[in-house]
Amino acid sequence: MRAPDDSHDPALRSWVASAQDPSTDFPLQNLPLGRFRRRGSGEALRGGVAIGDQVLDLQQALARGDWPAEVRPALALLAQGDVNGFIAQGAPARQALRAALSHALRDGSAAEAALREGLVPQALAEMALPCEVGDYTDFYTGIHHATTVGRLFRPDQPLLPNYEWVPIGYHGRSSSLQVSGQDFRRPRGQYKTDAAVPVFGPCQRLDYELELGAIVGPGNALGEPIPMARAEQHLAGLVLLNDWSARDVQAWEYQPLGPFLAKNFATTLSPWIVTMEALQPFRRPFERAADRPQPLPHLDGEANRAQGAIDIALEVWLQTPAMRERGDAAERLMQSNFRDAYWTLAQLVAHHSSNGCNLRPGDLLGSGTQSGPLPAQGGSLLELTRGGREPITLPNGETRRFLQDGDSVALRAFCERAGQRRIGFGECVATVLAPRS
Amino acid sequence: MRAPDDSHDPALRSWVASAQDPSTDFPLQNLPLGRFRRRGSGEALRGGVAIGDQVLDLQQALARGDWPAEVRPALALLAQGDVNGFIAQGAPARQALRAALSHALRDGSAAEAALREGLVPQALAEMALPCEVGDYTDFYTGIHHATTVGRLFRPDQPLLPNYEWVPIGYHGRSSSLQVSGQDFRRPRGQYKTDAAVPVFGPCQRLDYELELGAIVGPGNALGEPIPMARAEQHLAGLVLLNDWSARDVQAWEYQPLGPFLAKNFATTLSPWIVTMEALQPFRRPFERAADRPQPLPHLDGEANRAQGAIDIALEVWLQTPAMRERGDAAERLMQSNFRDAYWTLAQLVAHHSSNGCNLRPGDLLGSGTQSGPLPAQGGSLLELTRGGREPITLPNGETRRFLQDGDSVALRAFCERAGQRRIGFGECVATVLAPRS
Repeated sequence: MRAPDDSHDPALRSWVASAQDPSTDFPLQNLPLGRFRRRGSGEALRGGVAIGDQVLDLQQALARGDWPAEVRPALALLAQGDVNGFIAQGAPARQALRAALSHALRDGSAAEAALREGLVPQALAEMALPCEVGDYTDFYTGIHHATTVGRLFRPDQPLLPNYEWVPIGYHGRSSSLQVSGQDFRRPRGQYKTDAAVPVFGPCQRLDYELELGAIVGPGNALGEPIPMARAEQHLAGLVLLNDWSARDVQAWEYQPLGPFLAKNFATTLSPWIVTMEALQPFRRPFERAADRPQPLPHLDGEANRAQGAIDIALEVWLQTPAMRERGDAAERLMQSNFRDAYWTLAQLVAHHSSNGCNLRPGDLLGSGTQSGPLPAQGGSLLELTRGGREPITLPNGETRRFLQDGDSVALRAFCERAGQRRIGFGECVATVLAPRS
Repeated sequence: MRAPDDSHDPALRSWVASAQDPSTDFPLQNLPLGRFRRRGSGEALRGGVAIGDQVLDLQQALARGDWPAEVRPALALLAQGDVNGFIAQGAPARQALRAALSHALRDGSAAEAALREGLVPQALAEMALPCEVGDYTDFYTGIHHATTVGRLFRPDQPLLPNYEWVPIGYHGRSSSLQVSGQDFRRPRGQYKTDAAVPVFGPCQRLDYELELGAIVGPGNALGEPIPMARAEQHLAGLVLLNDWSARDVQAWEYQPLGPFLAKNFATTLSPWIVTMEALQPFRRPFERAADRPQPLPHLDGEANRAQGAIDIALEVWLQTPAMRERGDAAERLMQSNFRDAYWTLAQLVAHHSSNGCNLRPGDLLGSGTQSGPLPAQGGSLLELTRGGREPITLPNGETRRFLQDGDSVALRAFCERAGQRRIGFGECVATVLAPRS
């Protein structure tokens, strides 16, 4: 029988000194998974776990550590960088690895001397996407975002009638997923002006979208829906996701088949999968507002009502070239919370597979833009500037309607709760480069 | 210097007797590529080439044949089933292999005795998807389809203003791609009736869509658009594609982000990639109707105007359970031609990458439903039955508004031209199974 899970105990301290920093995203209570190699090494990717400002290299850890037999197969997969193979095994494998890592990284662990050699400073690690993503689906669970944006595109009908009933989603592009730190060029595209003939040229209304991404763990067979009661067993954890958007292209192309070139030039993910286990203390009841319909039975469930939501604070930070040149740090543009999502992760999984569609390990489910209920909580510039009509003013006096070349956007997320150690997601950042000449 | 390409010479005869059958899809002039193993063998997948009613096993062919040095690396990839690796090399590798295969399979070839041992009857071959598909994009190039369907969904505005200017497309689901012969269950889904609360249950308006799929050969780097002049160099060839569609689910879910669960329960591909080389004699000028705008410069090009279109006859065949029980063959429901597509393959590639989006070897670009200009040329039941209002009557007296359980739908395609040997695509067939109970 396994010992009770004490891995969230806030009193736990790690022998990795930086994990004790109260501001770190990666205390001993987090233990997120990623893929990396030492920068400039040309090494093959291997699995790693973030702890403080370090990465525990799981290839080194497997070679040097004295691990319980039950976690050695998992470590063997991760040592080869096969995060997909590991997360395909589901919650029991993740929980066993979490327990073993939690013990090995604690103050006083006999493993300290052996594992200290397997630490790589995050500053010297080149991170990759945290897993191979086969299919990427983007949902639309932010009802405040959907309402505000809907008002801009369709003033007479901001929230379409299906929104309250269907977890609206669409398929995104896997090939252009990038990991935090990879910059991208401003896209060109076709858009409409007042002239009769549309324009093709650099996007004039480039935007970000603040999202979370859920990573699928075990998949399902084609034709076999995943019921609500088992939906979360199919998720490994969460990352941050920036769904960069070309608003002028989007407005012109999106009917009737949805966004396409407005989105698929780049999508940025944070490098660390924060596991469902790490998020457990931050679960909250899922409550549908009284003026909204209750979910249909196949999207409803007891566990979902009891703790389907997750309390995750979400933020967008902007650093302009002028700020960078003067040495000024990024400015926070807004804050919202994933608690406000209209649909839960379990509902997304159950809906996605309800027609028999198969999810595969490593598939990515975007949450859609997470805006809060207040105007200042818009998760995109489109919302904060009311469609570009009212520019925001930054503390240094600069204004923005949409992103300019050189602008860096960073998404951040963290979970805080009394009696718990704060955990974070790390950074999801990229800079807009000038368009190709 | 390479000998002139005589691989289309209609006088060429193969020592594979069935390749001489005038009705075969796979004469010596075709030579399409697929992946297979002997049925029930549990073997690893290997590459194969269809010839008459046989498959030339490229693993056996490599081992037994005396091949030119220039094609041995290609055969080595294909012998391992690595079609993606082969097509990533582009047109020169495909052309060299085509020439070598054309010579080896000709009447009088010295290779006959060795290669005859490498033939597997197609009836004994288990085909797989012809390559690994990373991202699947579905376009909407059938203007007659777009207009007819648009009229059903939006009577006041059948063809949206962007259609004439933008090759409209959206991302589809890769995980649920299936190869011809794999059946699928009728999906369940959420749809709206006259009642206030939507229904969740088996799809009541299940449909097919007649499409071609283009397979990407060499990819492009993220941020590097593919210009029109080089667009076709990035395509390996074409397959048939059935974009099965749940019309009731689609009508309820598709706004504002496009089709999702209405499509991603199954998409069927034919197993053979008919190469761009095989299609060469059937190229036609691309002419935009005088009452339509000319393409913007980034979607225009001399070669595209001269021969951007391809003359490919397309057909849908239906066999109901009653027909099957009585031993009746399938009935042809319609015929159209890919010449009528509003956008060419080159325009799809140039548009898709115009924002910097990267295409990868094996990516799939669906053409969208290819309906002809006449009402009887609808490429879906939605069109043929005017939204389900006017059922079609089959020769045996049965009627259909939408597909019933047990219905088999087969797509077929072929190229014919005076002075050329007819080539075909083989079959893209699947049967609708009853929904999961």
